[in-house]
Amino acid sequence: MNNPQLNKNGELQHLLTTEGLPVHILRSILDKAATFVDVGGGHEIKKVPLLHGKSVFNVFFENSTRTRTTFEIAAKRLSADVVNLNIGSSSTSKGETLLDTVDNLCAMHADMFVVRHAQSGAAHFIARHVAPEIHVINAGDGRHAHPTQALLDMYTIRHYKKEFHNLRVAIVGDVLHSRVARSQIHALTTLGVPEVRVIAPKTLLPAMVENLGVQVFHDMVQGLKDVDVILMLRLQNERMQGAALPSAQEYFKYYGLTEEKLAFARPDAIVMHPGPMNRGVEIDSSVADGKHSVILSQVTFGIAVRMAVMSMLAGAR
Amino acid sequence: MNNPQLNKNGELQHLLTTEGLPVHILRSILDKAATFVDVGGGHEIKKVPLLHGKSVFNVFFENSTRTRTTFEIAAKRLSADVVNLNIGSSSTSKGETLLDTVDNLCAMHADMFVVRHAQSGAAHFIARHVAPEIHVINAGDGRHAHPTQALLDMYTIRHYKKEFHNLRVAIVGDVLHSRVARSQIHALTTLGVPEVRVIAPKTLLPAMVENLGVQVFHDMVQGLKDVDVILMLRLQNERMQGAALPSAQEYFKYYGLTEEKLAFARPDAIVMHPGPMNRGVEIDSSVADGKHSVILSQVTFGIAVRMAVMSMLAGAR
Amino acid sequence: MNNPQLNKNGELQHLLTTEGLPVHILRSILDKAATFVDVGGGHEIKKVPLLHGKSVFNVFFENSTRTRTTFEIAAKRLSADVVNLNIGSSSTSKGETLLDTVDNLCAMHADMFVVRHAQSGAAHFIARHVAPEIHVINAGDGRHAHPTQALLDMYTIRHYKKEFHNLRVAIVGDVLHSRVARSQIHALTTLGVPEVRVIAPKTLLPAMVENLGVQVFHDMVQGLKDVDVILMLRLQNERMQGAALPSAQEYFKYYGLTEEKLAFARPDAIVMHPGPMNRGVEIDSSVADGKHSVILSQVTFGIAVRMAVMSMLAGAR
Repeated sequence: MNNPQLNKNGELQHLLTTEGLPVHILRSILDKAATFVDVGGGHEIKKVPLLHGKSVFNVFFENSTRTRTTFEIAAKRLSADVVNLNIGSSSTSKGETLLDTVDNLCAMHADMFVVRHAQSGAAHFIARHVAPEIHVINAGDGRHAHPTQALLDMYTIRHYKKEFHNLRVAIVGDVLHSRVARSQIHALTTLGVPEVRVIAPKTLLPAMVENLGVQVFHDMVQGLKDVDVILMLRLQNERMQGAALPSAQEYFKYYGLTEEKLAFARPDAIVMHPGPMNRGVEIDSSVADGKHSVILSQVTFGIAVRMAVMSMLAGAR
Repeated sequence: MNNPQLNKNGELQHLLTTEGLPVHILRSILDKAATFVDVGGGHEIKKVPLLHGKSVFNVFFENSTRTRTTFEIAAKRLSADVVNLNIGSSSTSKGETLLDTVDNLCAMHADMFVVRHAQSGAAHFIARHVAPEIHVINAGDGRHAHPTQALLDMYTIRHYKKEFHNLRVAIVGDVLHSRVARSQIHALTTLGVPEVRVIAPKTLLPAMVENLGVQVFHDMVQGLKDVDVILMLRLQNERMQGAALPSAQEYFKYYGLTEEKLAFARPDAIVMHPGPMNRGVEIDSSVADGKHSVILSQVTFGIAVRMAVMSMLAGAR
Repeated sequence: MNNPQLNKNGELQHLLTTEGLPVHILRSILDKAATFVDVGGGHEIKKVPLLHGKSVFNVFFENSTRTRTTFEIAAKRLSADVVNLNIGSSSTSKGETLLDTVDNLCAMHADMFVVRHAQSGAAHFIARHVAPEIHVINAGDGRHAHPTQALLDMYTIRHYKKEFHNLRVAIVGDVLHSRVARSQIHALTTLGVPEVRVIAPKTLLPAMVENLGVQVFHDMVQGLKDVDVILMLRLQNERMQGAALPSAQEYFKYYGLTEEKLAFARPDAIVMHPGPMNRGVEIDSSVADGKHSVILSQVTFGIAVRMAVMSMLAGAR
């Protein structure tokens, strides 16, 4: 087995992508996360000393206060020391190479890197390079992967639906530019979801997306028919001015999730969104705040899932 | 009682403003603060585990390194985990609404929000919205309120003057734009100060300021006559170029606190300033550094007062 | 003895410069650092409670993510509370004086200031001003001094060469603008290195640099002849466009460290660089990554040296 995410004992060494992640690892992350959610009785997430004395470096080459905060909170709940580095404004601007920056941070005896980078593949590149006692978590690289987001989505689905093998799941929106969608598709198919759909205009779908094992829909009514789970994607502001889309209003008309369109899904369907939401673009406020929405549960479970990943990495030998 | 700052048991649930804060709550904050100042003998403020395992989020929609630092230090002395968020550069710029941002932070299981916002009323708005286990501290909202600044001022006054019921207090400067002045006036009158004066040019006073229970003076010599406490206000740089003021030099001539003007106050008068000071504009250096100045004591007491507020909020049920 | 860095008991009170630092203090810092490197067996640096309850303020008037991070990590490994302040964007821009800013931070009961400032002498100025229970570490002031960098360089040299009294050391590059070079020269001569050389074009050497006790070379072949240690300096990007230098390419041709030039040094010579490196300008990649390079060890030892300095300062009475 030559998976860069696993060590020779088959344990999770890095979390870089959900692609190729064995199903038992995926399930064990969700199970571990459940232990953090349950501590204190369902809602409270207590502080535990699992990472005491360890240093977690949030290395963000691309700014993201929200994502950085979720990892910071998760690491502090595990009693780690957390160092935040916005590298965009730092050494790389002084002409240093990415590898020199990483080597330097390793030499400071970091135990774990949480990496966000605009380049696809950056986290893999770093993981290949670091010493074996250092663990890398991909917090989003270009259009490639955002595995902790997908894992928290899986946790949320399992929390509300119990099983994966009987689900119909639809991913709606800008699949083309979305690292979240890629990571969701890999996780869903690995966990045995029999029917994964993507719903988007042709201009926002990658070429040959069917090869990922999904069914393609360009129409919301058909695509949402009888689905159990709706995963909305964020439409980035910069896309709205581009040639791929006529206007935010028109996008909302065809692909925004309204109560009318939601009615085509199963009566107990859940609605998810990775945030931040563009209300009135991807999703109507009545849906975002409605009884099908589990969007805020995603955030809560996201802390537990990140704690699970960090504690599993720290335990790998 | 329908005070948004108190819970159904009459305990402090949020600290949003000194307006309408019951006198026994006000006094209990000052008493609690005294226990933190006294730890270790008057000067040292030791670390205590009162907020161990709690997460304090400094949510600053408006940048203020100094204020943020005082809350960060206070929270860390209470052993809380502190997460700093400069939201100005974050999600709100991605089109997310304020409430979505707040909902997300709540879902991360924050225990306490310290909020700074350019809009008056922002902290109230957030406090009305959050779940009952989350506490909000207003760290300054527009021109409206800055309650911890006023509370540390009250602590300082009580430290040096022992009682409030026999004091004459003058607030000097740009009352019109000052959230500090509003919060001071409410706190002083609640604590029973019989005579609160404001001294400012007409252009820097709100309409009908007398309705707040203060006496208005436009002349420093008359206004400072026999006062026990002088609360200087900061003149913001942007005001100095505006139509409300002729020039910084002329402002200093008429309203800057010099030793000559200070001589009209009582011989044991104390001089206070919320910082940062514009020396030579609001205040002469000889006064700022002179024997009447208690400006640096304000800063020290400010840590203790913020610790007191945080520990009282954390204890509310 | 009137050394501003020592208290009346002759203990280290502040670390401002390596100039005039007694040799026994210098050696005791290196010895103390060794205890942190050795904890856990040579590579691991464990967390120790020596600064528990203490507050270390990283006060950076000039941005430097890397240097700030090394101090942050060192302080957290000592269990201190760390507060990061980027003052460039803060109170000084609001018209506050440097001393008022410092007074305010002191009043918040900081135990230690780590100061980075663009003005030479800033750290001394602050150290003269603070109360005796507060300790100042200079993290780089203008062109003047960067003592922790020089100390970690000395630690690295001792680690690889055991003794100082039999060494030939060359410092290569922009000595004129380098606080690192100044601090290295003072430390090397204090520790008894018999022969310290500087190698640079005339335009990048200070007037009368010989007075510091160094030999001057303008040619790499002659300057590197038989040296044991090569200390490369960083060439700042802004210099490369200036009148002092023809071009980065030409600089590299004459003063960049290549394997060919390195061959003139002793066969067991070590190569050091304070980072971040400009590969292909000061140093060839084959040398930076080659067997003579100890550049990453410098970074690791830098954490231990900063822990040593902080724990010694905290222990001074």
